[in-house]
Amino acid sequence: MTPPEDREQMGLRKLREIAGDQADKPLGDWNKVAPDMRRYIVEFVAGDILSRPGLDPKSRQLATVAMLAAIGTAPDEFRMHLAGALRLGWTKQELVEVLLQVSVFAGFPAALNSLKWASDVLPD
Amino acid sequence: MTPPEDREQMGLRKLREIAGDQADKPLGDWNKVAPDMRRYIVEFVAGDILSRPGLDPKSRQLATVAMLAAIGTAPDEFRMHLAGALRLGWTKQELVEVLLQVSVFAGFPAALNSLKWASDVLPD
Amino acid sequence: MTPPEDREQMGLRKLREIAGDQADKPLGDWNKVAPDMRRYIVEFVAGDILSRPGLDPKSRQLATVAMLAAIGTAPDEFRMHLAGALRLGWTKQELVEVLLQVSVFAGFPAALNSLKWASDVLPD
Amino acid sequence: MTPPEDREQMGLRKLREIAGDQADKPLGDWNKVAPDMRRYIVEFVAGDILSRPGLDPKSRQLATVAMLAAIGTAPDEFRMHLAGALRLGWTKQELVEVLLQVSVFAGFPAALNSLKWASDVLPD
Amino acid sequence: MTPPEDREQMGLRKLREIAGDQADKPLGDWNKVAPDMRRYIVEFVAGDILSRPGLDPKSRQLATVAMLAAIGTAPDEFRMHLAGALRLGWTKQELVEVLLQVSVFAGFPAALNSLKWASDVLPD
Amino acid sequence: MTPPEDREQMGLRKLREIAGDQADKPLGDWNKVAPDMRRYIVEFVAGDILSRPGLDPKSRQLATVAMLAAIGTAPDEFRMHLAGALRLGWTKQELVEVLLQVSVFAGFPAALNSLKWASDVLPD
Repeated sequence: MTPPEDREQMGLRKLREIAGDQADKPLGDWNKVAPDMRRYIVEFVAGDILSRPGLDPKSRQLATVAMLAAIGTAPDEFRMHLAGALRLGWTKQELVEVLLQVSVFAGFPAALNSLKWASDVLPD
Repeated sequence: MTPPEDREQMGLRKLREIAGDQADKPLGDWNKVAPDMRRYIVEFVAGDILSRPGLDPKSRQLATVAMLAAIGTAPDEFRMHLAGALRLGWTKQELVEVLLQVSVFAGFPAALNSLKWASDVLPD
Repeated sequence: MTPPEDREQMGLRKLREIAGDQADKPLGDWNKVAPDMRRYIVEFVAGDILSRPGLDPKSRQLATVAMLAAIGTAPDEFRMHLAGALRLGWTKQELVEVLLQVSVFAGFPAALNSLKWASDVLPD
Repeated sequence: MTPPEDREQMGLRKLREIAGDQADKPLGDWNKVAPDMRRYIVEFVAGDILSRPGLDPKSRQLATVAMLAAIGTAPDEFRMHLAGALRLGWTKQELVEVLLQVSVFAGFPAALNSLKWASDVLPD
Repeated sequence: MTPPEDREQMGLRKLREIAGDQADKPLGDWNKVAPDMRRYIVEFVAGDILSRPGLDPKSRQLATVAMLAAIGTAPDEFRMHLAGALRLGWTKQELVEVLLQVSVFAGFPAALNSLKWASDVLPD
Repeated sequence: MTPPEDREQMGLRKLREIAGDQADKPLGDWNKVAPDMRRYIVEFVAGDILSRPGLDPKSRQLATVAMLAAIGTAPDEFRMHLAGALRLGWTKQELVEVLLQVSVFAGFPAALNSLKWASDVLPD
């Protein structure tokens, strides 16, 4: 059982790994909407779950992008994690592959939404 | 542009790669609900999309599992593709990691549903 | 503004038009889960909305089937309204067309779910 | 069975109870998108359902906020009913509690969406 | 089995039938987000599915509008297909009927969203 | 920041408060699908979130029921939390009020699903 200081440290390290300096703005936004929300995202989402060792970080980030694209109602989180997938080593082309595949499982409108949001993040 | 015979052949080969002999039952089921549905799944889903070369098959299968778990209303397709993920080289532990992560993006009830369905497929 | 007796009468007539004798069981079920639920379905759903004159009943029933297939979480209501679509003059083939099309807008898993539920209702 | 004049009166009274003067704009908007939509919202939504005596108005409003946050695709209705929850006696802190809890049942992206929309309505 | 040139031709013809000159912008947009996305929409969505002969085009377009309104997260596609429904012979009043009915099956917030989007497309 | 032992203790106490002896079966089920899932539900869901002091437990439970009914894809969790709502002091009639209201925000099929699931839990 991880002591809470470590959960926060692990979470902040994971968020930096995914988003680099780009983590500052969402961390500030989460704090503003509710300080406890920031804490749960750092400690539970990033510290407990995204930091789990059982799946390599690059593969886990692909699963994150796939989930957010399929859910289809979180453009901000989608863009942050898509940029994180580039940072963790996926190419633009590989990520577009995932988004094209959304058409099969969640329908073409969901795929088009995710591709439009992606165009704000993926390099030309 | 791929001629249609090839789309069907590519699709059937991909379905065998994912599901092995276990593809026979869904292929029969899809044919029974509507022969054209079987055709679109073979030609478009498996032939056009899942066979695309831009993402390695193992990673693509992880994205498939992540999407179906997040969508949360397709237990049969989820089980088929989860078994396919084992076949393509993911371990039980890695796949459980993906399903635990569903709790973050789609909520705990969706994660619990996918973990329950997974228990029919993953080895003890 | 329609007096309430007429709303109930219009609703019951509409439910008979859609489901014939098959309306008895759902009417009993709705009453059992909550008598007021039965009343709102008869008066508001069937009496106010489904009885509106601005769209012919056959076309309206197609829209109902399309919505329930796209929503994808109501197998009982879907089957009742699919049978109603047959009764109002749509052929099995035309209805299968609508369900195949679900694959485009809500994804293949949703289309497969609706086609499986449809096989309980559509004639061989 | 309530005569229709009363359904409209009850509905308008309930909307004033929830939204005060702020009900004027949505009532106008609903009328503009479709006059019958305004009528159904006043008579059925507000008159039949939200005016039911079996649950005290303050508790009912909490359930409304919880549902709209979980559904996650109706920012305008969410904001109106969140402001209504303040008016009916819930504190900002209690309402933020509900929105934090969305993370458990519908996922963190849905919780973040609702908290962002809430920041337009809740006092600093 | 349709050769691929014909699938593209059928798809483009169908998109012109639905959207007329208004198809140029989405075709360009789809190409920009991902050229293969444009191809799948033309060949599979429009060529394979929407061009199927088993349901008359006017009825099929009604089903499309009903699905997109029920799904509720694709305002751009909804507006394009709603305009297409006018072009294929449905009146404004008939289409508003479909959108009012969304309140029954997907809830009032979804119906209000679709009616708001529709006001950008339907004539006054 | 709460030490982890306390998070587990708080979570187990909260689950007993909601489900009494009926918590044993889900705790065992969660453990079986994945021991870490049981841990996150106890520590994060029940310990961090549901135990938060900012909203009285009875009101919070109403929000839980409202969210699960609106989400509509988690019959097991819905039944557990509906029984918990009875235990925390809500009457059958008050809970039926919440479920009737689902018809407004998520549509009648979602309301009917939740009322059917509720009939397994609510006293006659």
